[in-house]
Amino acid sequence: MKAVWLEHQQLELRTDIPTPTPSPGEALVRVLRAGICNTDLELLRGYYPYQGIPGHEFVGVVEQGPPNLLGRRVVGEINAACGKCRFCLTQQPTHCENRTVLGIVNRNGAFADYLTLPVQNLHLVPHSVSTDAATFTEPIAAALEIQQQLSIHPEWRVLVVGDGKLGQLIAQTLALTGCDLLAVGRHRDKLQLLENRGIKTGFADAVVDRSFDLAVECTGNPEGFTIARRSLRSRGILVLKSTYTGNLTIDVSSLVVDEITLLGSRCGPFVPALQLLAEFRVDVEPLIQAKYSLDDAIAAFNHAQKRGTLKVLVDVAGS
Amino acid sequence: MKAVWLEHQQLELRTDIPTPTPSPGEALVRVLRAGICNTDLELLRGYYPYQGIPGHEFVGVVEQGPPNLLGRRVVGEINAACGKCRFCLTQQPTHCENRTVLGIVNRNGAFADYLTLPVQNLHLVPHSVSTDAATFTEPIAAALEIQQQLSIHPEWRVLVVGDGKLGQLIAQTLALTGCDLLAVGRHRDKLQLLENRGIKTGFADAVVDRSFDLAVECTGNPEGFTIARRSLRSRGILVLKSTYTGNLTIDVSSLVVDEITLLGSRCGPFVPALQLLAEFRVDVEPLIQAKYSLDDAIAAFNHAQKRGTLKVLVDVAGS
Repeated sequence: MKAVWLEHQQLELRTDIPTPTPSPGEALVRVLRAGICNTDLELLRGYYPYQGIPGHEFVGVVEQGPPNLLGRRVVGEINAACGKCRFCLTQQPTHCENRTVLGIVNRNGAFADYLTLPVQNLHLVPHSVSTDAATFTEPIAAALEIQQQLSIHPEWRVLVVGDGKLGQLIAQTLALTGCDLLAVGRHRDKLQLLENRGIKTGFADAVVDRSFDLAVECTGNPEGFTIARRSLRSRGILVLKSTYTGNLTIDVSSLVVDEITLLGSRCGPFVPALQLLAEFRVDVEPLIQAKYSLDDAIAAFNHAQKRGTLKVLVDVAGS
Repeated sequence: MKAVWLEHQQLELRTDIPTPTPSPGEALVRVLRAGICNTDLELLRGYYPYQGIPGHEFVGVVEQGPPNLLGRRVVGEINAACGKCRFCLTQQPTHCENRTVLGIVNRNGAFADYLTLPVQNLHLVPHSVSTDAATFTEPIAAALEIQQQLSIHPEWRVLVVGDGKLGQLIAQTLALTGCDLLAVGRHRDKLQLLENRGIKTGFADAVVDRSFDLAVECTGNPEGFTIARRSLRSRGILVLKSTYTGNLTIDVSSLVVDEITLLGSRCGPFVPALQLLAEFRVDVEPLIQAKYSLDDAIAAFNHAQKRGTLKVLVDVAGS
């Protein structure tokens, strides 16, 4: 089959990759669409060691699997869990100690004609959701993880720092809670997308120090962390949603004095993400900036790496 | 009156300090006993800007104040709150935006013949609690703050990193929750004090990585943070109980991937702290390593600064 192959921080389009054979309990999925995520770009920069096919945001059609899924459009949770460790046994499969992760850890990903995933990871895409839109299920689920971890109170003042791909989805999903939300970023055009959804936006100087109950850091850079930290009142919560290049230097004493909570947040629930898409309560189409065929996947990655680019999709099956 | 005076990182015993006059709503307290805390030593090293009388762990006798307190032994909460800000109005006076803090921020402290505090900050010391023991009320309350912030589950594996003054009290109070507790430190004699209370102890090499649900960092040094961080399972909680010299460099990406919570923790509730002392459910006498008169307070500070010293008390009134 055809696939994008990552090795030694180099991407290559290959046509000699064997079509995968699903293991017991797995389905074979023909990929329709795949999205490029910042994590893919970080893999490419070598921040994580990974060799294989990247890609974890996808929509596909089940070609081998249980009858109720055959021929149907699906999205898939990316952590393939062992089912036996203490995390699996306590319904926390995203933290399975033996997990493989689609396109990230020891499991070939979605920039390919085919992928395999455990059947239990797959979710049917509702008819009302377009294939392009459904490709956003995984990052919307990641945005919703914040609401799994915390009850967002409507009286809270909430700050989202970062107007990129993930920041957009986090702001959109947090807005649904009715909280008093401000999203800040550096790009007028991206902030406009949020304004179009009725979300208050601004640049960093719109943030009043020590006035927010919750801040979500979605930039992955130290400046974004500083803005988020300074925005918080005593006993405020700072959600870390982005991975960072290297380490971050933090004034821990101030976290103690102000009793601040830092909360790491990663993968989230697919079912409510699909529901929000089906009910058109999040709007992802404006985030799509380009679509490339699998043949042009290397160009798609080059595009996605340009500063300020929102979502770039790879149209694998051309449907 | 006589008092220890801190100015330009120098301590001086002075006899020319005017006895304070309580403001409306305040009581005048004759100090009986005061304890030296690490925060006092940090003030002396200039980590926080403070000029005045240090000391915030004390027992005293009310000399001017409401009839029900007059002549009685009291301890006092150290944050003097404005009663009007959003934190005061939401019952969080320890985070009052206009607070003064006894011996730490804009309020003369306890290494003196007299101090003043708002009446509402004072708590009667039960008869069964000795004056020496009651001096530990404030740090016990700080230890109990962890249990205000979190429900400690009896099935949790909990790690306390640090066998110093605060680590000892945190381990003792966490042990009361019935959790599976391990305290680690560097000093065999201090760990023995915890063993005497039936608490499991060890050196750093006794910590199995990724096996604890909760870790409490009480060392204030980067090595302690590293041990605490590495000890945590995915979705574990790291309580920061110590202030640090300067900043700490943290691998934030791993906090995101493992969805770790960092939680700053400071002042806590006095009522349960006094109750535990009254019921002899914490044992503080073995932590007292020396007692000095107020005349010898400078020597007391010199003693407290020696590596590995537990609690040094200043016997202000000699009773």
